[in-house]
Amino acid sequence: MANRFERARQELIATPALVIDLPTIEHNLQRLHCYAKQHGLQVRPHTKTHKSRRLARMQIEHGSVGLTVAKLGEAEVMAAESNDLLIAYPAIDPDRRRRVAELAKSHTIRVAVDSSYGISVLAAAAEAAGSTIGILIDLNIGFPRTGAATPKIALELAQQVAQAGKSLRLDGILFYPGHVWAPADQQAEILTQIDQRLAETIALWEAHGLTANIVSGGSTPTAFQSHMIRRQTEIRPGTYIYNDMNTVRAGYCTLDDCAAAVIATVVSTAVPGKCVIDAGNKTLTSDRNVLQPETGFGHVVEYPDAQIVRLSEEHGEIDFAACDSLPQLGERVTIIPNHICPCVNLQNHAYLQTADGIEQDSVDARGLLT
Amino acid sequence: MANRFERARQELIATPALVIDLPTIEHNLQRLHCYAKQHGLQVRPHTKTHKSRRLARMQIEHGSVGLTVAKLGEAEVMAAESNDLLIAYPAIDPDRRRRVAELAKSHTIRVAVDSSYGISVLAAAAEAAGSTIGILIDLNIGFPRTGAATPKIALELAQQVAQAGKSLRLDGILFYPGHVWAPADQQAEILTQIDQRLAETIALWEAHGLTANIVSGGSTPTAFQSHMIRRQTEIRPGTYIYNDMNTVRAGYCTLDDCAAAVIATVVSTAVPGKCVIDAGNKTLTSDRNVLQPETGFGHVVEYPDAQIVRLSEEHGEIDFAACDSLPQLGERVTIIPNHICPCVNLQNHAYLQTADGIEQDSVDARGLLT
Repeated sequence: MANRFERARQELIATPALVIDLPTIEHNLQRLHCYAKQHGLQVRPHTKTHKSRRLARMQIEHGSVGLTVAKLGEAEVMAAESNDLLIAYPAIDPDRRRRVAELAKSHTIRVAVDSSYGISVLAAAAEAAGSTIGILIDLNIGFPRTGAATPKIALELAQQVAQAGKSLRLDGILFYPGHVWAPADQQAEILTQIDQRLAETIALWEAHGLTANIVSGGSTPTAFQSHMIRRQTEIRPGTYIYNDMNTVRAGYCTLDDCAAAVIATVVSTAVPGKCVIDAGNKTLTSDRNVLQPETGFGHVVEYPDAQIVRLSEEHGEIDFAACDSLPQLGERVTIIPNHICPCVNLQNHAYLQTADGIEQDSVDARGLLT
Repeated sequence: MANRFERARQELIATPALVIDLPTIEHNLQRLHCYAKQHGLQVRPHTKTHKSRRLARMQIEHGSVGLTVAKLGEAEVMAAESNDLLIAYPAIDPDRRRRVAELAKSHTIRVAVDSSYGISVLAAAAEAAGSTIGILIDLNIGFPRTGAATPKIALELAQQVAQAGKSLRLDGILFYPGHVWAPADQQAEILTQIDQRLAETIALWEAHGLTANIVSGGSTPTAFQSHMIRRQTEIRPGTYIYNDMNTVRAGYCTLDDCAAAVIATVVSTAVPGKCVIDAGNKTLTSDRNVLQPETGFGHVVEYPDAQIVRLSEEHGEIDFAACDSLPQLGERVTIIPNHICPCVNLQNHAYLQTADGIEQDSVDARGLLT
């Protein structure tokens, strides 16, 4: 691949540096929105990936109907960019529900909930604040993390919301297909199961006079197969704006679609056959590749056969046994991380490559505990 | 164990929250300094673990001779707390060497180096700044990450430093025994090998008229066995101030010695036999336990037989199959992380439990790219 981070690599910005290529982001946004438009799907991107107000603004400009967040801190930052926020998280503890209810005074706020307790306490918080919180019932469609276990439980929760008065508004269903990180030959079956489970749940709701206006699904892996889940009305991809080695190795994009990289410097070549770069797990995280964990801790663009075999906090050890040549001390390399979301979360700032040059962008919503 | 984080857990501070117990820190500092004094060892703690000026000050007050850092950003923050800083990192790229030389104008600065190239460029940087940089030759004592591969190479590098004129000062030897994270029955042999390798290198230096005034070793795992490495003059432990499940499961301390924990809230119990807490890999990191990776992503104090089996970014999934009871929705639990250093690095603030109450402390040196 042509290294689209070559300019940043040559610029001698201090390393390790997180570099974002804006033209590639433009391309990634256009691709997703074009697909969504074609299939009549709304897009509500998950901002956990970039945590940047500037990039959220670009997502809105490309036609997103609103933004998705995981934390209230993110919601409070992104409230400046959109009036329509989805907290795709059971925000039911005292601190979160108070902040949700407060934000719902000025914004359209929706929260995903999977418990009767959660519905009760959110209703009480909204009542105390004098606001209305939109509720999406979180439905377990085969990935056992959160979500109502059966269509019947989802119905009971929806009925509780519908009966809660004006503090809550039943907006629909949310699901997260985390198990779609599977080999390609298993995906069609997973998508079919999700499609059936949703159809069954919605039919049950309708039989009881309830409507799911929004049926919100994730995520980047399934983004371009969303039309196979027929009742879905909106998608919440996050990673698609940057991509990473998880989406590349799963076949969802190519290296050329990766908009974020870490530029690192070789700081030691004292151990024969290896070199050490200044990017360890405090830069790249310890996340292994989801589908190919044996491939190491990221991809070295200039040495595609090299392998990042071990990370300390600030050291990345690269094995060059499969390469014809080794880098020199002081040489810079470009790393595409396995999982870009937690990697961005480690930085206060990123460098943006634009058509005009390189500028700094702040990772506005990182480091917020809650 | 009595949960020393019980007070913070009851306080209803927003979760996830990183809580530090100051009395336990006092205990950990006293234990290490008492041991070091007994054996005539200097202590130069690694501040990468806490990144807090306040805690660095406590380490100085307990008799540390100076501070250790990995990044220049950390050095620039910690320069306010100590006049004597060791950068235990090959700080040889243009940005780092310029900042090292600048800091050396006002502080005693030492840098670990393992290459002739590194020595040349640091000498040039110090000359340009009009300062003197102290050099420790990084020696590979069996952990193949950085470090001169043989005593002979270490001698040649030392000679280069000695001949560099007043820009550099040969201060001694640095080593990092990362391979001491090994089962207990292999450690004595590792320590003996380190001891022999150091003796051999120092003898070679002395035969050529060179002295290693400082012989600086790590780390928390070997801290209390440091007397077995006879030529060592100082130790650079980092984790000892907090401890974590890595040091507990390796047998270096008990759960009662852990001074840092994450308080988390149960936000979903929708999947039978499991619960989800609001601490995922953006709070706990994806680091597995070094010696017992099968134990999951940390220890749940209130449910010691539970296992944190999977982390998403903001979700931690806990399996309670081995427990008699499950927590309720909204209940708070205390998690001791596997590896506390990168975990602290994720937070802008921590809560400190003192004798008087709970206050906030800033993680001053985190989020600094370089």
